[in-house]
Amino acid sequence: MALPVATDDPRRTRLLRALHRQPTDTRPVWLMRQAGRYLPEYRATRAQAGSFLTLAQTPELACEVTLQPLRRFDLDAAILFSDILTIPDAMGLGLSFAEGEGPRFANPLRSAADIARLAVPDPEQELRYVMDAVRLIRRELDGRVPLIGFSGSPWTLACYMLEGSGSRDFARAKTMAWNDPSILHQLLETLARAVAAYLTAQAAAGAQVLMVFDTWGGLLAPAMFAEFSLRYLATVASTLRSQSITRDVPLILFAKGVHGTGQLESLAQTGCTALGIDWTIDMADARARVGDRVALQGNLDPATLRARTDAIDREVATLLAAFGPQPGLVFNLGHGITPDIDPEHVSALVEAVHRHGRQD
Amino acid sequence: MALPVATDDPRRTRLLRALHRQPTDTRPVWLMRQAGRYLPEYRATRAQAGSFLTLAQTPELACEVTLQPLRRFDLDAAILFSDILTIPDAMGLGLSFAEGEGPRFANPLRSAADIARLAVPDPEQELRYVMDAVRLIRRELDGRVPLIGFSGSPWTLACYMLEGSGSRDFARAKTMAWNDPSILHQLLETLARAVAAYLTAQAAAGAQVLMVFDTWGGLLAPAMFAEFSLRYLATVASTLRSQSITRDVPLILFAKGVHGTGQLESLAQTGCTALGIDWTIDMADARARVGDRVALQGNLDPATLRARTDAIDREVATLLAAFGPQPGLVFNLGHGITPDIDPEHVSALVEAVHRHGRQD
Repeated sequence: MALPVATDDPRRTRLLRALHRQPTDTRPVWLMRQAGRYLPEYRATRAQAGSFLTLAQTPELACEVTLQPLRRFDLDAAILFSDILTIPDAMGLGLSFAEGEGPRFANPLRSAADIARLAVPDPEQELRYVMDAVRLIRRELDGRVPLIGFSGSPWTLACYMLEGSGSRDFARAKTMAWNDPSILHQLLETLARAVAAYLTAQAAAGAQVLMVFDTWGGLLAPAMFAEFSLRYLATVASTLRSQSITRDVPLILFAKGVHGTGQLESLAQTGCTALGIDWTIDMADARARVGDRVALQGNLDPATLRARTDAIDREVATLLAAFGPQPGLVFNLGHGITPDIDPEHVSALVEAVHRHGRQD
Repeated sequence: MALPVATDDPRRTRLLRALHRQPTDTRPVWLMRQAGRYLPEYRATRAQAGSFLTLAQTPELACEVTLQPLRRFDLDAAILFSDILTIPDAMGLGLSFAEGEGPRFANPLRSAADIARLAVPDPEQELRYVMDAVRLIRRELDGRVPLIGFSGSPWTLACYMLEGSGSRDFARAKTMAWNDPSILHQLLETLARAVAAYLTAQAAAGAQVLMVFDTWGGLLAPAMFAEFSLRYLATVASTLRSQSITRDVPLILFAKGVHGTGQLESLAQTGCTALGIDWTIDMADARARVGDRVALQGNLDPATLRARTDAIDREVATLLAAFGPQPGLVFNLGHGITPDIDPEHVSALVEAVHRHGRQD
């Protein structure tokens, strides 16, 4: 379990410096879903746990899989192994994962009364297993690289809570937006408070960076995104900015598939530290659009990891060149690693980022 | 089968006038997948056919389902009932649809030799059933509304031909783009010739508007889209523009999920007549970006049809207001109708477009 640590190891600070748009020796890199099924050691721990939920809800196991990719690859951050649906589960919706399928809630929201009844969970009570995992991971990391905590966004949580499962278009949540917008706003307000409390508790437990995944914001037309997602991302960001415990903790917002004229700009004005960018946006364009208001994180097409390693190397160089020489880039994929990826290719990617990304 | 026709019926010309950015009495409207599973009469004909492929490949049945939505709704266009994968099937890949699943090819492309061996089909031979359907539908429509013919784009066809089925990310096609770009270009060149020949034959058989669906262009990062999709959309457009038989046939390009800075603008410069716009782009923004180079078609979120009819009415009015007063709008959804939609809501939508869209 022990990991080598040296106080002058640049990986201790590379991510945090880049998020604050300060110069770094090379570009920091971590990968969404870096702890995951593409790793044989993850599959072994997952098999040992018996179920995905047991894995996520047992701090020792969550810690183990969080650290696994750091033993293989020269990554610049750890990200808490957890699920984006922990909050609705703690609210009593009864999360489960059928084998080979997505998430499912035993008690999806089916009425205004269901929504009125929801209470904001106390993270140290109902989500204690997450906080324990954060504390354990921080201790095991021992300063080697920063730990990123995260939550789903209010809109994305609402999508699952109303639908009861994954969906192509989350039509139930959208239908509520058209038919009963005030009830949906009530739900989103509750969720914004829950997300802020959850992220605050993660920071208190030791998370050094916080990230909000708005996985389904991109399903919304721009006017609806502004009303039902962006607004609550901004609430979360301003709550975190207003508290002494989270004021200086970098916050990354990732709204996948959100790209419209003015939308990246609006996200950059929420008070967040960085924006996650998916691979369908040109990084030079993203940079030009948000200026130096925030750092950017992304955005290699995750399918690139299926290409030959010389092609991966070329694509990394192209992306870094598109971003340009200024500080403020956290290299990542534009979405999570898929289970079919060869870990050797991840190794090649990380090495290529650090080699092509040298800033001296 | 007989449909009422009057020579002064504005539906005879509304679509064509709007595509040419000429004034119309009200906005024309048709809906992607307007002939489909949400209609009980479609499900009955589909059951009678026994399989989706029999339905699509029997001209009398394809004609019947093409006309069904026109009997219910005051639509301004018919669109050929067919599948985007007819060309690969005619090339010998062996298309089938397993019940409740997507398309599958018995002989997907697995080598450079497979690609080198592909021949451009003669539409009046290997795709005769499509041309017969076009001729039959034109005869049955008897001028009431124009008939739209269509094809999948070269990139989208290549995605399926290389993957062998549907896919979340079409990683095989992308991997070829990185590892063996010249072989992929060879495939796309063949497909661009096949698509142009197919659309030309549809025009010769009576299609009055042609549309190309680049369903999976949006999976590509902008630089890859330019190299592997846009380039071949432009080839198809310029081929159609260079032939007397297709020169004056309006061409609509729909690249779903393609939205980046410069991308709509590039699509508008291919020589097409109109761009299809998905619902994640604000219509006022799309209008501002392409100026008056092309007409626009779209872009209501298809999930809107699940909302109450008063909400549908309001969303239609909002979209029309966003586009503004100038000519050049073909009202449509931003993607196809889903099977769960109540036909009464489609009726409300069509009526709302014609009412709010009056131009006098």
